[in-house]
Amino acid sequence: MMSKMKAVTLVADWDPRPGFKLGAKDIEGKQTYLGSKVWRNPKLEIREYDIPKPGKGEVLIEVKACGICGSDVHMAQPDDDGYIFYPGLTGFPCILGHELSGVVVEAGPGAIDKRTNKPYKGGEAVTAEEMLWCGECQPCADGWPNHCERLNEIGFNVNGAFAKYIVLPAKYLWSLDPLKERYKGDDLFLAGSLVEPTSVAYNAVIERGGGIRPGDNVVICGGGPIGLAACAILKRHGAARVILSEPSATRAELGRKMGADYVIDPTKVDFAEEVLRLTDGYGASLYLEATGLPTVVYPGIEKAIWEGRTLNSTVVVVARADAKMPVTGEVLQVRRARIIGAQGHSGHGTFPRVIECMATGMDMTPLITKKIKLEEVPENIIMLRTDRKECKITCVMD
Amino acid sequence: MMSKMKAVTLVADWDPRPGFKLGAKDIEGKQTYLGSKVWRNPKLEIREYDIPKPGKGEVLIEVKACGICGSDVHMAQPDDDGYIFYPGLTGFPCILGHELSGVVVEAGPGAIDKRTNKPYKGGEAVTAEEMLWCGECQPCADGWPNHCERLNEIGFNVNGAFAKYIVLPAKYLWSLDPLKERYKGDDLFLAGSLVEPTSVAYNAVIERGGGIRPGDNVVICGGGPIGLAACAILKRHGAARVILSEPSATRAELGRKMGADYVIDPTKVDFAEEVLRLTDGYGASLYLEATGLPTVVYPGIEKAIWEGRTLNSTVVVVARADAKMPVTGEVLQVRRARIIGAQGHSGHGTFPRVIECMATGMDMTPLITKKIKLEEVPENIIMLRTDRKECKITCVMD
Amino acid sequence: MMSKMKAVTLVADWDPRPGFKLGAKDIEGKQTYLGSKVWRNPKLEIREYDIPKPGKGEVLIEVKACGICGSDVHMAQPDDDGYIFYPGLTGFPCILGHELSGVVVEAGPGAIDKRTNKPYKGGEAVTAEEMLWCGECQPCADGWPNHCERLNEIGFNVNGAFAKYIVLPAKYLWSLDPLKERYKGDDLFLAGSLVEPTSVAYNAVIERGGGIRPGDNVVICGGGPIGLAACAILKRHGAARVILSEPSATRAELGRKMGADYVIDPTKVDFAEEVLRLTDGYGASLYLEATGLPTVVYPGIEKAIWEGRTLNSTVVVVARADAKMPVTGEVLQVRRARIIGAQGHSGHGTFPRVIECMATGMDMTPLITKKIKLEEVPENIIMLRTDRKECKITCVMD
Amino acid sequence: MMSKMKAVTLVADWDPRPGFKLGAKDIEGKQTYLGSKVWRNPKLEIREYDIPKPGKGEVLIEVKACGICGSDVHMAQPDDDGYIFYPGLTGFPCILGHELSGVVVEAGPGAIDKRTNKPYKGGEAVTAEEMLWCGECQPCADGWPNHCERLNEIGFNVNGAFAKYIVLPAKYLWSLDPLKERYKGDDLFLAGSLVEPTSVAYNAVIERGGGIRPGDNVVICGGGPIGLAACAILKRHGAARVILSEPSATRAELGRKMGADYVIDPTKVDFAEEVLRLTDGYGASLYLEATGLPTVVYPGIEKAIWEGRTLNSTVVVVARADAKMPVTGEVLQVRRARIIGAQGHSGHGTFPRVIECMATGMDMTPLITKKIKLEEVPENIIMLRTDRKECKITCVMD
Repeated sequence: MMSKMKAVTLVADWDPRPGFKLGAKDIEGKQTYLGSKVWRNPKLEIREYDIPKPGKGEVLIEVKACGICGSDVHMAQPDDDGYIFYPGLTGFPCILGHELSGVVVEAGPGAIDKRTNKPYKGGEAVTAEEMLWCGECQPCADGWPNHCERLNEIGFNVNGAFAKYIVLPAKYLWSLDPLKERYKGDDLFLAGSLVEPTSVAYNAVIERGGGIRPGDNVVICGGGPIGLAACAILKRHGAARVILSEPSATRAELGRKMGADYVIDPTKVDFAEEVLRLTDGYGASLYLEATGLPTVVYPGIEKAIWEGRTLNSTVVVVARADAKMPVTGEVLQVRRARIIGAQGHSGHGTFPRVIECMATGMDMTPLITKKIKLEEVPENIIMLRTDRKECKITCVMD
Repeated sequence: MMSKMKAVTLVADWDPRPGFKLGAKDIEGKQTYLGSKVWRNPKLEIREYDIPKPGKGEVLIEVKACGICGSDVHMAQPDDDGYIFYPGLTGFPCILGHELSGVVVEAGPGAIDKRTNKPYKGGEAVTAEEMLWCGECQPCADGWPNHCERLNEIGFNVNGAFAKYIVLPAKYLWSLDPLKERYKGDDLFLAGSLVEPTSVAYNAVIERGGGIRPGDNVVICGGGPIGLAACAILKRHGAARVILSEPSATRAELGRKMGADYVIDPTKVDFAEEVLRLTDGYGASLYLEATGLPTVVYPGIEKAIWEGRTLNSTVVVVARADAKMPVTGEVLQVRRARIIGAQGHSGHGTFPRVIECMATGMDMTPLITKKIKLEEVPENIIMLRTDRKECKITCVMD
Repeated sequence: MMSKMKAVTLVADWDPRPGFKLGAKDIEGKQTYLGSKVWRNPKLEIREYDIPKPGKGEVLIEVKACGICGSDVHMAQPDDDGYIFYPGLTGFPCILGHELSGVVVEAGPGAIDKRTNKPYKGGEAVTAEEMLWCGECQPCADGWPNHCERLNEIGFNVNGAFAKYIVLPAKYLWSLDPLKERYKGDDLFLAGSLVEPTSVAYNAVIERGGGIRPGDNVVICGGGPIGLAACAILKRHGAARVILSEPSATRAELGRKMGADYVIDPTKVDFAEEVLRLTDGYGASLYLEATGLPTVVYPGIEKAIWEGRTLNSTVVVVARADAKMPVTGEVLQVRRARIIGAQGHSGHGTFPRVIECMATGMDMTPLITKKIKLEEVPENIIMLRTDRKECKITCVMD
Repeated sequence: MMSKMKAVTLVADWDPRPGFKLGAKDIEGKQTYLGSKVWRNPKLEIREYDIPKPGKGEVLIEVKACGICGSDVHMAQPDDDGYIFYPGLTGFPCILGHELSGVVVEAGPGAIDKRTNKPYKGGEAVTAEEMLWCGECQPCADGWPNHCERLNEIGFNVNGAFAKYIVLPAKYLWSLDPLKERYKGDDLFLAGSLVEPTSVAYNAVIERGGGIRPGDNVVICGGGPIGLAACAILKRHGAARVILSEPSATRAELGRKMGADYVIDPTKVDFAEEVLRLTDGYGASLYLEATGLPTVVYPGIEKAIWEGRTLNSTVVVVARADAKMPVTGEVLQVRRARIIGAQGHSGHGTFPRVIECMATGMDMTPLITKKIKLEEVPENIIMLRTDRKECKITCVMD
């Protein structure tokens, strides 16, 4: 094993906007919960690091694949004032990359494999959660790790996986063994790198949205990776009709591949009318807002709920947005409907179930439209500021 | 038994606003689902009627008590153009009154008492649902009677209970027998007349809101009859703290009597800050919007959820309003929260459970602040347009 | 239209066993809730009837297909003392047949199509629930039609569908329109006749069992029509592995066709060990007891739960049996498991969702292994006392 | 602070019964998951120990009160062959005591108070969970800490709280601050020591049993501390009638004090008939088996469910027993009922909600019928082998 490794590093200046006040968990000059208020002049560099050593309960993983996420793009993208777009927890410099898969190469003491309840011995194919929930605060103790009050995040304020190696606590890892029958060679790790984003969608529609009953209709607004993963999950869950609302033709095609029965272009048809037409006037049991434009999308969802005959519709808001949706309570009353927010991917048996779905026929790999090498990561992160053609770009390690 | 009876009748002119189109279930000159678009010049009259006869599956009830509801007020109240305020299903002329209790005096063939599974024989003390769900449409067949597609409503488009007698299908009746140990004489029927509005609150916070776990905090916005009933129900359900937000001093006092541990005046304190102060920074698990002013109230609820540490809060919207609440999806995401609409009181075991609660200590009768006679109903309905002093005014029959 | 029709009629003698006492809803000489205690010397006859007339809220249906159910066999089968095997609600003579589909030919006044909310006009393809829930007793009012306290049943105490025509209240009908795109000609009605038994399975695993999350494992004990339908439903619902336990080779093959990933022969392998082997030691989230032999089957289920790592397993008991299962509470404690009983198919949106599933790819028609004519029904009902080769035998009307 | 402390220690011989095989997590001579198969000749000794030091994430607690639990009695009680009665996880010698409250006196680095999210500074009044869930195995990661695969238990295989001091990881502690308004002096810690057993009952009836709706009836079988705590919790949760089944007159009286509306002596009346009589023929929505004699108790519960009109009853089995209950599936089917196992008290927000209930009126301290000093613990543990008079005996530290 080499002793040095290269890694894609996000560097930025700590230059808080006027009026910014350090939060309780912020650390002067190093870390903040409000990235876009603080970090300026982001730069992507490939830096050299010592290969890290696993401590107690940790393992060293040789990274095999790692996808680029939209948040990677927003962390590296300056606005007109030079501040990064990404609004959340960040601590720079930081190695990016959190949609990872790899192989355990070394284990610290007490690093136990959840699947076998035995110590990691090396050679295990794994993926990891991105959220390093503490397991000790009240939300964690109560069973809500996605709402950890002392959260750290891989590739945001903790070094990530656009690197040859990464050290992670064993408790965040999930075995990719179940995938080995269906995926061979690189494909195992490509599939494995998709477990994390698929789990975000699964948490949204299954854990938070409550899933559906076989024969229900669903509507997914937005054909990004989360929306497309939701198409696959809800098709698998038994939806009668999966309707994807997405203007891009390439995404529409991908949507059909992932399980959408119909794709609507909301810029060309009336969203609600089309949903009602496709469902014989019933509408859907579950609507997923995955566009990030809730003020644009919600009125159409509300109309479909109001005019459709389906009762008990759930609207799940998974895309992050600062905007205020105009919500008519009467529609929720008359149609027995509800609105729910979804965040995270940890806990609730989500990761292992996503892996089981992939192991038994839910193929997410079509989401990966481009494979790149580590050195190409920076240019691709920058390219994604404007590109609308690629879906998931994934770094495959040599 | 006399052969004639007097009854408080709402009379109005069928004079649709320009552009009004008859709906599928509207009947020209007789009935509409959009009252405020059609009915003009409402008048309350005490008219004389033949005492009705119970048909198949029906019973004749001698009414003993009947409360005035806010919708009675709005049906009889003209706006500046002379149209009634009440926006929903209405068919005039109609005897008003739907918060009723009474005694069965005659039963048609096949009118069976749900409590005994035997035919009604006369003498049974009963209350009734206000919603005459058909039991045959898809929502009814699927188990959602509050969303019946062929609904009729007592005292709105079907003759109501501000009368000596009323005929009703047996299936909408619920026995008041369990109350007899605790309530004697008139009190039995006063309590019985409160089952219907209490069931609206119960449906909102228990069936729709999902109830709470003992030790959770709750916040009720609005100290009208529904909000006050919700205080009693949630106190009974084990809330750690029931916080009522209500500016009126008389309602505040009534709130404390009904179970509120604290009453906030949102016109004098910052609602969210006060909720957080009273809950040691946690906020509440359930917020009930029962004011009818969601655009005013929601921002405060949202702030309490955002700044409080409680996860999984449910906002139940029970008051009807046409306004659009400004909802920040991110708050629902970060706090794992949800918004739910509540409508109706039927089904889900609500009426019998409300009666059981009343039978075992949940005393709702303090809600009745004034008792009147049948002839006084019209003037009191009109007085309630402006009065903020009385809570529930109840007509007690001679 | 002819004025007479032939119908398969079950005739038996009212000859109560010693000690039998008439129940509250029993009718001397006509009807009992305890068939096997009362009816003796069953005979199947093809009798001639006047074609019935639809009354208020009813329609006349021309039957197109009707399946033979196990209960038909048990009603017509005498034990050693000559009493029928079937233990439940029965009133003879009665036309048998309750798994029906057909076409509306005439509608009484107020017979409204749930799908359109308009009166039936004739020509509609429909299926029907078997359970004539009253809609007026407390369980019905509370939302539990499968537990109606005044139940009647088609083909048990109310004339059934092994006949050219049947009259039924419109509220029990469900439109087969959604199936028309996928099923043509007779196939529409064959599929339609399977909605009822499929709904029994759906009610068991989805409504009562609570469904599964995509990626969960399930085990179905018993490859009769209900067990096989459950295989199809749970595969559709996203199970990682559907394991069917069934000794018959022909049923095993049918099981694979309906969605089972694996079939176990519990007479040849250790049930629990095999389940654990196929699930990598995890076991299943849902176990369906559909054999009618719970004392034989439960110990194996309990062992699989105890030794498997899956928490929160649900055991659904759908097959009727008088036996006592030996249940170790400690297993339910340590594994966070539960046991649930399932009965019926009505309510909860089950029929329309089953139809939507069939309309969008869940093909149940392989369950039908033999098609017969009306005259052949009696001999086939008798043949099924011993036959283990056929699955569903369906009468197709000329 | 002294440097030495006395502690009640359970000593026993490692002398496995013939045929015993070391389990995966057993440790030769030190620890086993099957206590009664291994440990012989138990002795209670008061031994002297160095006062422990808190490590990383840990705090040193000065114990103020600690209750004796039935499992303490069974660990110290030999059967005819000299083996201990307690069947579970044990590692001796071990300081007993797990129903504790106390004051933090010293904090290791990173020992954070869940209530404030700040480091413990000393002086905080706390109680602790008994189950040291690892937070890293699959059940813990999935949200089921009561089913941790690497569990340790205070006072069983980890030194407990019948001692002046105890060191515990901060994450298992819960602040008693909310109790300070209502409980002063020793009472604060007496109440605090009851949080653990009350949480076992809360987990059983609320988390596992699903709670009730206000107005439901409940039946508690067994008036031990768990059963009595369940009476208080369910009364608080809004039960119409809390019925306790318990033969002992002193326990019956205590039951009434804790919230039981009725107490049945099942040795003198027919349990099911009495339940039905008290509930007007309805029976109960929730039955708690807290006797440890399920084969004796279950037939009565089953009869009450079968003959009662209540649907959807839940039977929660919380008491541990090796016996097999005779369960008739048909009863679960006809009555839409279910059986559930309950274990543990951790997670799901249980501890903090129990504390909130106590802080707002649910007084559990009547459960403590005797207060003793540390030196008296051994004799009282032995006395409880036969005593049926005391409920909770609690050691109050000087």
